[in-house]
Amino acid sequence: MTGTTGSVLLGPGDDAAVLAAPDARVVATIDLLVEGRHFAPGAEPRALGHKALAVNLSDLAAIGAAPKWALLAISLPQADDAWLKAFAAGFFALAERFGVDLVGGDTTRAPQRTITVTAMGEVPASVALYRAGARPGDDIWVSGELGGAALGLAHPEIADAAKRLHEPEPRVELGERLRGMANAAIDVSDGLAGDLAHILERSRVGAVIEYSRLPRSAAFKSLKNPDLERDCVLSGGDDYELLFTAAPARRADLEALARELGLPLTRIGTIQPGEARLAVLDAKGEAMRFKPGFDHFA
Amino acid sequence: MTGTTGSVLLGPGDDAAVLAAPDARVVATIDLLVEGRHFAPGAEPRALGHKALAVNLSDLAAIGAAPKWALLAISLPQADDAWLKAFAAGFFALAERFGVDLVGGDTTRAPQRTITVTAMGEVPASVALYRAGARPGDDIWVSGELGGAALGLAHPEIADAAKRLHEPEPRVELGERLRGMANAAIDVSDGLAGDLAHILERSRVGAVIEYSRLPRSAAFKSLKNPDLERDCVLSGGDDYELLFTAAPARRADLEALARELGLPLTRIGTIQPGEARLAVLDAKGEAMRFKPGFDHFA
Repeated sequence: MTGTTGSVLLGPGDDAAVLAAPDARVVATIDLLVEGRHFAPGAEPRALGHKALAVNLSDLAAIGAAPKWALLAISLPQADDAWLKAFAAGFFALAERFGVDLVGGDTTRAPQRTITVTAMGEVPASVALYRAGARPGDDIWVSGELGGAALGLAHPEIADAAKRLHEPEPRVELGERLRGMANAAIDVSDGLAGDLAHILERSRVGAVIEYSRLPRSAAFKSLKNPDLERDCVLSGGDDYELLFTAAPARRADLEALARELGLPLTRIGTIQPGEARLAVLDAKGEAMRFKPGFDHFA
Repeated sequence: MTGTTGSVLLGPGDDAAVLAAPDARVVATIDLLVEGRHFAPGAEPRALGHKALAVNLSDLAAIGAAPKWALLAISLPQADDAWLKAFAAGFFALAERFGVDLVGGDTTRAPQRTITVTAMGEVPASVALYRAGARPGDDIWVSGELGGAALGLAHPEIADAAKRLHEPEPRVELGERLRGMANAAIDVSDGLAGDLAHILERSRVGAVIEYSRLPRSAAFKSLKNPDLERDCVLSGGDDYELLFTAAPARRADLEALARELGLPLTRIGTIQPGEARLAVLDAKGEAMRFKPGFDHFA
């Protein structure tokens, strides 16, 4: 019997991992990254190792789960020790930071590089954050800032934006702390508008948000390109911030939490009764047009 | 909150699945199948859906776990509803047979077709079947018959062998029933010799098996190709039988279990003290030479 921590009763190297889940509630998610689609050919492998795990931890955070375990499947054009070593360095640096054990893996040769991660964690079921929990009158909040990752794609020379794109920070602590405070949550992976639409559809509610309130990368100020800014902030993917709703009675608690975590939490709008429709208002209070979220088959 | 069964508190369509694991022990495994490597370009998608899940359920069976949940990530050259529908039919037919719920997924476009499945299940930790549990004096057993899948690759016109290759049957019931009976187990995915070597290495023991005792596909008899037969039976992958060790005191129990399940269980050799070395004896009692198992980077 091999174990790396108390929660891993049997680690990698057997047919499957055996994990102790004392809360008797397990959360699981899977994400597939494909070279040429989710990352550029020749992408820096250390950043890629970070990102492959980060996007999965972000999904767990959006449920309010504490991450615990991961499984990793990689296809590579050839056995490439240097690439794997750098990839592993990025993956494990993030894993260690959040106490995640790699408990299983599969590596195989294929013409194309692909990375699939399953991340697993735990959450008490009664306080898990579901997309379906938004209620009319809820405030709509978002963490951190938006549009940086999409800006990094358009302007790779802007270092802060490029870092947002290549090494996103999953909002793990925030997700856990939102248990019992937020009514619904999702992570911003396909763009604010598209991801908020998922909450609206599942919760059967509408929403109004104010464009001017949306927290955004400081780099937009000097760019003076309002169309790009709008596309990045409203419709840009890969930011991995948490978008959540909470009752107005929670405002003081959430402001205190933002201070405690050193992470801005911004109130951007309100959940409305009725149809699952999103209105984004400009500075004059008029509805703006915006692109829907990112489509992997677009 | 969406659920498909009592154990799925939150199913697909949210950021992650929330699963009830009342035993507080969760087993997880991941397998990646790549077109052109693990399956032929143009492979029949229904069989592929079956196989992608089967190879993962086989890993759970080798731990003695009851399968419960699966996550699926697919890359496809283009959105292809007919292919996905047939794939799903094969996947879900097997999933339903063993009570497995698909709780998460990710589909994306990529030049190459790849399929990654994470399967999860439950097992009481004290009776999980580890590779490291073999003891000197243990009998070595294998279920079903060997070599059929490799024969199906060499002779696709032999229907029984081709079916073994394309639609393997995971030994799920056997795995669960071996709890508390077997001391060590593994599934035969890379070939008998290679997979037995994993048990020997992890258990720090040796083994002697008798080639003539190995149960094998009836098709070999008429082929009269002893070299191919030896390579398929000793070193052929993809059979997904269970290879396990048990104390001699368990023989009557295991014979009764074989009758109950309608699945042959054959005693093929003995675990030895000392070095992790495998000897395969021919009819004269002399050591045979054989190929090691399948290497995905070969």
